Formats: sequence, C-alpha cells, structure tokens
Amino acid sequence: MSRVVKLAVIPGDGIGPEVIAEAEKVLAAVTAESDVTFDKTRFSLGAARYLETGDTLTDDDLAAIASHDAILLGAVGGVPGDPRLKDANIERGLLLKLRFTLDHYVNLRPSRLYPGFSGPLSTPGEIDFVVVREGTEGPYVGNGGAIRVGTTHEVANETSVNTAYGVERVARFAFAQAQKRRKKLTLVHKTNVLVHAGGLWQRIVNEVATEYPEVAVDYLHVDAVTIFLVTNPSRFDVIVTDNLFGDILTDLAGAVTGGIGLAASGNINPDGAFPSMFEPVHGSAPDIAGKQLADPTAAIGSIALLLDHLGLEAEAARVIRAIEADVAARGDAKRSTSEIGDAISSRVLA
Amino acid sequence: MSRVVKLAVIPGDGIGPEVIAEAEKVLAAVTAESDVTFDKTRFSLGAARYLETGDTLTDDDLAAIASHDAILLGAVGGVPGDPRLKDANIERGLLLKLRFTLDHYVNLRPSRLYPGFSGPLSTPGEIDFVVVREGTEGPYVGNGGAIRVGTTHEVANETSVNTAYGVERVARFAFAQAQKRRKKLTLVHKTNVLVHAGGLWQRIVNEVATEYPEVAVDYLHVDAVTIFLVTNPSRFDVIVTDNLFGDILTDLAGAVTGGIGLAASGNINPDGAFPSMFEPVHGSAPDIAGKQLADPTAAIGSIALLLDHLGLEAEAARVIRAIEADVAARGDAKRSTSEIGDAISSRVLA
Ligand SMILES: CC(C)[C@H](C(=O)O)[C@@H](O)C(=O)O
Ligand SMILES: CC(C)[C@H](C(=O)O)[C@@H](O)C(=O)O
Repeated sequence: MSRVVKLAVIPGDGIGPEVIAEAEKVLAAVTAESDVTFDKTRFSLGAARYLETGDTLTDDDLAAIASHDAILLGAVGGVPGDPRLKDANIERGLLLKLRFTLDHYVNLRPSRLYPGFSGPLSTPGEIDFVVVREGTEGPYVGNGGAIRVGTTHEVANETSVNTAYGVERVARFAFAQAQKRRKKLTLVHKTNVLVHAGGLWQRIVNEVATEYPEVAVDYLHVDAVTIFLVTNPSRFDVIVTDNLFGDILTDLAGAVTGGIGLAASGNINPDGAFPSMFEPVHGSAPDIAGKQLADPTAAIGSIALLLDHLGLEAEAARVIRAIEADVAARGDAKRSTSEIGDAISSRVLA
Repeated sequence: MSRVVKLAVIPGDGIGPEVIAEAEKVLAAVTAESDVTFDKTRFSLGAARYLETGDTLTDDDLAAIASHDAILLGAVGGVPGDPRLKDANIERGLLLKLRFTLDHYVNLRPSRLYPGFSGPLSTPGEIDFVVVREGTEGPYVGNGGAIRVGTTHEVANETSVNTAYGVERVARFAFAQAQKRRKKLTLVHKTNVLVHAGGLWQRIVNEVATEYPEVAVDYLHVDAVTIFLVTNPSRFDVIVTDNLFGDILTDLAGAVTGGIGLAASGNINPDGAFPSMFEPVHGSAPDIAGKQLADPTAAIGSIALLLDHLGLEAEAARVIRAIEADVAARGDAKRSTSEIGDAISSRVLA
C-alpha cells in the first residue's frame, strides 16, 4: 500500500533554491525504494516574487499551501537595504504569517555537535540538545504601535502576549521530548524582570511537570543561558522558551555547534490541524547566492525532521546517519553546494 | 586643592561584600597619594536586609543614596528558590529601581579579552568592544500585567516602551564613545519583527549618525550578533542596543572574554543629574559566598569605570594596567578573592 505525501516546496530567495535542490535530492534518495511518494507543488514566494508582483502572501497562496501535508522552505528575504523592499517586510508578511496562520506553535530546533566536527569552542564537550521555541505568541505577535512617528516625541511600543493556553501546549510538547531523551528540561525566561510573562511560564511548566515525574526540571534566566552555551553546553537536554528568547538562543546554539549551515528546524503544528513547515535556521544570504557556496546540510537536516514528523522514523534516521558520516569525513577541501548534496545522497543510498 | 567624592557603597548579598572589599582596597591604593578623597557611606541593602526588615529600598534609602556623587554596588539577590523571598523581587525592587529612579540611561559594559588570557573560543582574535545598553526603557519598564492569573485562561502581557527622547540620548552617548574609539558603531535590534521599536531605533541612529560623519554605522539583528560574538567578536567596536538585548549580549560577551568574573559595568547618568552606579555584571552567587572563591576583578574593573566617570582618567588607567598585568600573569594556581585584590593593589602602587 503506497502513501502519498503532498509537499509544498517554497525555495524562496538567495541561497534558498540552491539548498532546497539538495534537500530534494536527499529526499528522493531516501524514499527511492520506499512506498512513500512525495507529490510536490512549488510555490514561488519571497522577495523576488514581491518585486515582480507586489504580493507577499495572498489568501490564495495561503489556502493552496494549507491544502498540503507538509511544507519545505528554503529561505526568504531580499538584499538588505534594497530600497525597493523598504516597505515590504518579507519576514513578517511571509515567514511569520505562515507560522502564525498555520498555528506552528512549536519551533523545534535540535543542536548537535556532530562527531568529528570541531566548532568554535576550544573544549565544547558533547553537545546534543533541542530547543523547543514557542512559535505563535510572545513579542512576535505584532501587537505593537507607535505615536508621533518621525518626531522627537515618538513613542514606540511592542507588546508580548502570553497565554496559559499557548504556553501549556508548547510546554507539553517539550516535556514529551524530554521524556524520550535524557529526561531533563530547562525553562528559559527572564522571570526577574518580565514578571507577568515569566510568572505564567513558570507556573505552567511547574504544573505540566507533575505529569512527567521522571523529567528533571530547572530554570535559567536567558542571559545566563548564553554563558552556559559557550562554557558548558552539555548541561542542556531540552530547552523550552518563548519566541524571542528561542530565536536568539538557537542562533547562538547553531554557532557553537559549528555554524548555522548545519542547523535544521521544524515549525510544527503537533495537532495536525495544519501542515508543518521545515526550514534551515539560516537566512537567504543574498551575498553568496547563486555561487554554489552555501552549505545545504541544514536544509537536508530539515528533511530528517520532516520525515520524523511524518512518522517515517527509519528514513529520518538514515538521513541523519548520512549527514553524520559526511560531516565526520569533512576535511578542509571546499565543496560546492551540490557536491555536498550528492555526497549525502550517496551515503543515504549506500 | 583636594577634592572629596561622596561615594555610596552597597556591598549587597552573597559574594557582593567580598568583591567590594577588594574594590575598595584598590580604590584606596590608587588614590593613596592623590588629592582626591572618597568619603564613603555604606548601605546595607539586598535580600539579607529584606529578610531582616521587610524593606527593599525605602524612600529614605533612595534620598540618602541620591545625595552622593557616585555609587559602588556589589551584587544583590538571595538564594534562588528561598521561599521567604517568594514575594520579594530584589532585582526589580532594588537594582532596577535604582537604575530607573537615578535615570541611569546608559549601561556601559566594556568587553576585552585581556592579553595573555584565553577564553572559551579556540581562535578568539582580538576582542575589545563596548556595549552601550539603554537602561531606562524597553521591556524593562515594568508595564506588564496579567488577567485571570492562575487559571487556564490567563493572559500575561509585557510592554516594551521606547521613546525618541530615550533612544536619542543613549545613541548620542554611543556615538561619542565610537568617536573616541575605533569609530565603528553597530546598532543591534530585531527590526524585522519588532517593527515599531526597531523602526524608532533605526531612525534615531540614522539621524544622530549625520553628526558623526567619521563613525561607520552598521546594523545587525540580535540573533545574528550572538553568532558573531563567538565566530568573529573582533568585528565589534561599539554596540548600541536596547535594555533586554543588551542584558543578553553582555552576558555572552562576558563569557567569550573569559567569564563574567572579569566583566565590569557602569550605570551612568551622563547629565550628572543623579549619581552613577558602578557594579560587576555578575550576580550575588550565593552558592560560593563567604568562601573567598569569587573573582573580584569585575568589581575592581568597575572602580576603573567609576574613576573614568569622575574625570580621573590617569587613576582609571592605572587600575586597568594593574588588572591587565595581573590577568596576564595568572597561571592555574587558585587564589582567594583577597589574594587577587592584594595582587592588583600592589600593582597599582608599584
Ligand atoms: C527571519 C526572522 C523573522 C526569523 C525569526 O526571527 O524567527 C529567523 O530569525 C528565524 O529564527 O527563523
Ligand atoms: C539582575 C537583573 C535584573 C539584571 C538585568 O537584567 O539587568 C542583570 O542581569 C544585569 O545584567 O545587570
């Protein structure tokens, strides 16, 4: 009995199309002899599309994308400072709109220092943790505003919105991850300053913790976490945190594990009410686009997260093993984007 | 003609009193033969005082402190999780109350990798930058609230308030710093998500930039900065950023330059309307308190910032040189808090 997965592919801008091509190569390789078929629809979205048509993400786009089982996204965003993009906010209008509309309340970002790979830390130790970042609340909600804009009396506010409903569902997901892993969960916030939001996060995590007696829970302020991520990253197993802190910490986590060229992520709706979306953590890097300079490993790692999300654990594991083997064999020789994709594909097929 | 500086000393909790004792030692040494006298008043404030009297910072305390020329603070905060402190928020009620009431709109945090000192990065390069963190606005204003607290329908909000007035004065300070240094200023924010606050910061920085044609200005998102701080910290000269981003980035900066045992800071009111306050970036670390295990270098570095602020540049430079020499000579031998203070004092006197 064969299974068909409808996959929306959004290559996007800059290096997006290049890394997505390699991710698709690996996806094809890993499913070559399986009974799963990926039925792909390509969506041309991003800064390039905006410049051509003035559209960022129409209701029709959204409806079409939402009718798929999952989404694979490369990266979106134009050249920084491009005057023609002055009034476009591709991040808010496209990426965040997808995450919010498709209720991607879990932003799952694993961080691993691959065996044999040396990152920027002189004594990194073992690094293997996952950040469960809330994806639909916090300072990302867009509930800000300004008065007297452009004057010396301007006041610009941003409001972080946090609900028991929103925090509980992401906390529950994080505890379930911890239960499957090393059974340790760290709540990260800034409870001593953001007392209302922080208090809510702390209360809910304490409550959900009673359902997971085997999971050890601790709490750290976000500033302290940045210290531990460079001095003792091994201390982390699962981190659960809000949208903004998660954004900041996962870039740092990417850096200490060898660069965001390796960092994969999933924007997940665990309820299955909407398709989940898988994307590398990195951006569109227009400065190196079209030159086959980008590392597609993060995009390929996102394929593993996609497969895992679809319940195809064996296939996901094969992709991860192929990435591990490739990374371990990396020397100083520069390879092109497609050479890396080819190498990982052949390891998947081997 | 001798000058008398009225100094309020708040040793605080945990390791605070230990590191402040060494800072005072160095202050005495560096002013031993000068015509400046420090007339000190000690204030017993912090978790210990709260537990004894129930007071955090009274109006009388505030008035008394405000009548001084400057403040030296160790660290405040009790043992995390102490049930008797459940309803005390020493950070908000004492530290932030001082910063806000005394209008410390510049939180100045220099980051240097001292010559001969190896931090956690395998190839750190030269690190010498300063973070100018806004101190009286942003998500720290305490304009949050929650409804239906404790229920499954709780909503907890936090509002970040940013004003043209507030951003302009701190931007001006940051540009003046850049002008005196390597003439490079990096604005750090998250303009693609926090569009209103970010837009205000970007506009004001662009405007002030026209007064400093020699200063090169660039912009980075806060998440990207965490990457550069571990992969290429040399790229930074002056960073100007909001209260929360500054909090997060200066802990990370402390870590990459060898630990927050070395990180000094000043909470400055450049207008001189209120006394400025100098304190190590680290906290009260109750777990190692009273054991002479704390590194007083950050507190001693704060003395250098204090002297500099008072216009005593030569004295400040002597303290910095003494710290540099001590750090360069540090081997693996463990020294007590007072041994480090003694060593730096003798170098100041030498
Ligand atoms: C592009 C931007 C809106 C986005 C975010 O802040 O979430 C990115 O930094 C990320 O981490 O996916
Ligand atoms: C203790 C806390 C309120 C404080 C802050 O967040 O500013 C501290 O982290 C700092 O950096 O001085």
